[in-house]
Amino acid sequence: MKKTTEKKKNEQRDILLFASPYASADMRWFAHFACGDPFLAFTARGKRIAAITALEIVRCRKESNFDEVLDMGAELAKMREKSPEAGIPEVIVELVSRYKVDSFLVPPDFPAGIFVMLTKLGLKLDVGGTPFFPQRVIKTEEELNFIRQGNRASCAGFKAVEAILKESVIDKKGFVNWRGKTLTSEILRVAIEHACLDAGGINVEGLIAASGDQGADCHCSGFGPIRANSLIVCDIFPRISATGYYGDMTRTYLKGKASPEQRKLVADVKKAHDEAIAKIKAGERGVEIYRGTVEFFKKLGYETGFKNGVPIGFFHGLGHGVGLDIHEAPNLGGRSFAAEALRENMVVTVEPGLYYPGIGGCRIEDVVVVKKDGCELLSKHPYKWEIA
Amino acid sequence: MKKTTEKKKNEQRDILLFASPYASADMRWFAHFACGDPFLAFTARGKRIAAITALEIVRCRKESNFDEVLDMGAELAKMREKSPEAGIPEVIVELVSRYKVDSFLVPPDFPAGIFVMLTKLGLKLDVGGTPFFPQRVIKTEEELNFIRQGNRASCAGFKAVEAILKESVIDKKGFVNWRGKTLTSEILRVAIEHACLDAGGINVEGLIAASGDQGADCHCSGFGPIRANSLIVCDIFPRISATGYYGDMTRTYLKGKASPEQRKLVADVKKAHDEAIAKIKAGERGVEIYRGTVEFFKKLGYETGFKNGVPIGFFHGLGHGVGLDIHEAPNLGGRSFAAEALRENMVVTVEPGLYYPGIGGCRIEDVVVVKKDGCELLSKHPYKWEIA
Repeated sequence: MKKTTEKKKNEQRDILLFASPYASADMRWFAHFACGDPFLAFTARGKRIAAITALEIVRCRKESNFDEVLDMGAELAKMREKSPEAGIPEVIVELVSRYKVDSFLVPPDFPAGIFVMLTKLGLKLDVGGTPFFPQRVIKTEEELNFIRQGNRASCAGFKAVEAILKESVIDKKGFVNWRGKTLTSEILRVAIEHACLDAGGINVEGLIAASGDQGADCHCSGFGPIRANSLIVCDIFPRISATGYYGDMTRTYLKGKASPEQRKLVADVKKAHDEAIAKIKAGERGVEIYRGTVEFFKKLGYETGFKNGVPIGFFHGLGHGVGLDIHEAPNLGGRSFAAEALRENMVVTVEPGLYYPGIGGCRIEDVVVVKKDGCELLSKHPYKWEIA
Repeated sequence: MKKTTEKKKNEQRDILLFASPYASADMRWFAHFACGDPFLAFTARGKRIAAITALEIVRCRKESNFDEVLDMGAELAKMREKSPEAGIPEVIVELVSRYKVDSFLVPPDFPAGIFVMLTKLGLKLDVGGTPFFPQRVIKTEEELNFIRQGNRASCAGFKAVEAILKESVIDKKGFVNWRGKTLTSEILRVAIEHACLDAGGINVEGLIAASGDQGADCHCSGFGPIRANSLIVCDIFPRISATGYYGDMTRTYLKGKASPEQRKLVADVKKAHDEAIAKIKAGERGVEIYRGTVEFFKKLGYETGFKNGVPIGFFHGLGHGVGLDIHEAPNLGGRSFAAEALRENMVVTVEPGLYYPGIGGCRIEDVVVVKKDGCELLSKHPYKWEIA
């Protein structure tokens, strides 16, 4: 109930943002324009208004969604003729006063520094709910294609990994050797990044190609030599530079021969993945699908918790929304968002995983769009993982 | 005077951050640890404390600067047993109360949503000055090397551009043709990105390879075919993935034969660049060096302002700090930061530029470290620009 109220609140009020579209998915979505430095955007009297520096103003006027684009630098200079100490907050108050609006909703990640200054200068600001733009959670056909494109860039990364592992041999010390050198996580990551680039992606930080116990530490990017017969978790989430939308997929590989424990681990993660995907449809609650996976692993005897100060088992959420942000609503996890029912054309990752130092980690991640009677994959790549 | 007071305030008070180290340079610097999702960090009783999810906790305990790393997920779960509605703000208040601190300084980009909630829950929060960590502005020898490495990745990008332009021919329609295809901004950018990757860089959004009037629109990334005899602005600012530090360099090229106007434009930008670098030393004020460049261009007859709604001339700052952030203090521009004197081991870009639709744009950018009696280049690459 609380969320519905917040949603209405967000929709009815004038809004004010001060953010960089590269860093804020809300700003990028609202502005339909991308640049690196933060700028001002607000609504007033049914119009969308921006104020931005001369460096961006031509492109912003041409490309963006705004009805009016003001010159922030010129406004600041004009104001400083009267008040030499004036800064961005003073200009914001002056600009919005021209539209006779003095009350706005701001997003939860609005910068506190400007928030406090604007409040002192007399603007009434309230912080909106999450998601700030509830419309952003329901994807259009165009957005679904952008996310598919992101996932195709992820797939290009997997193909690069598979080609390297196939070409590699196992050396006498039990390491994977590629073209005469010991294969490392770093070599794999660079190969993935090149492949993503050629597929239109920009690689963001945090890309994972981690083997053995590093792969069991589920956000470790991985470093150093890769051993034969060890699980290699590859989590690839490029951003398409032309659109700003992300792909997000994970596959787990092994060069050599898997142990029975590893084989069971991978098979059970794949079963959990299939089960979760089979359950996803409009009307289902994310938290219930997550709990189903928790129960599934528990029944199979997988322990989740801490062992020697290290988390083991299935200790992360089952999935998250993806779009202009790599992590956005809705959520398939134990948290509050997950309580809400899934709706048609929401997009979520499905990424069960199991992690046990000694055996290794396995995660399998795809992206689906929620439909009335089920869901459709927005990511397509084989699950073959054991490479001889 | 105001800035000095703020600095003292920042240094004496306990601080509290809630940010992602990938997105917040302050958090990355303070934590000495990198991950994608935001987490809590604060100081209390002389200790540095973090609270982070199970996904990151093992790495954070191993790699970070913190004296204590708490399990945010476990704390939240424990709290929800008593108060099912509790969220991150309630956990923050509970955690800091254990250390008997109820007043903190937060950075200007602290999220307003959490700021308002914490204030309601009784924490006394004040917003700190900019820069939030004044120590971050003065670089250590290690940091200077990290920035040099970033600039070497930029240079790898320039070498890729130069190789392509050398190998290219001019077709009958006056376009640059590379390996049988019309050369585009997109092809140049992908080549730059591959080169940066191989030099250890992650490419951030906004990389520029823009020609003709696109290059005169100084933050346009560039798109479509590149004409012969037109200026091509290449602004390359990769982040080194291992360290998080940026390089930031710009060179301007031309394939074919430059016109007398273009030749004069490039020569005068280079002169402005040399003049500015010659002036930079500890004790000089950034705003004065910037004004020197403004005057230099004015004396040579270059007009700055708006023409047909488009900014022309020298309409951006002369330079900015660079480090864990691509734009950080100090500033060589007309803004307030620039009023402060430069100090030894501050790092700034020097990037004069001139932009005239019809002629094109030219920007030349290097990075220097301020020294007692001058400055030293942290970026080294030739200035040869006309490629036959």
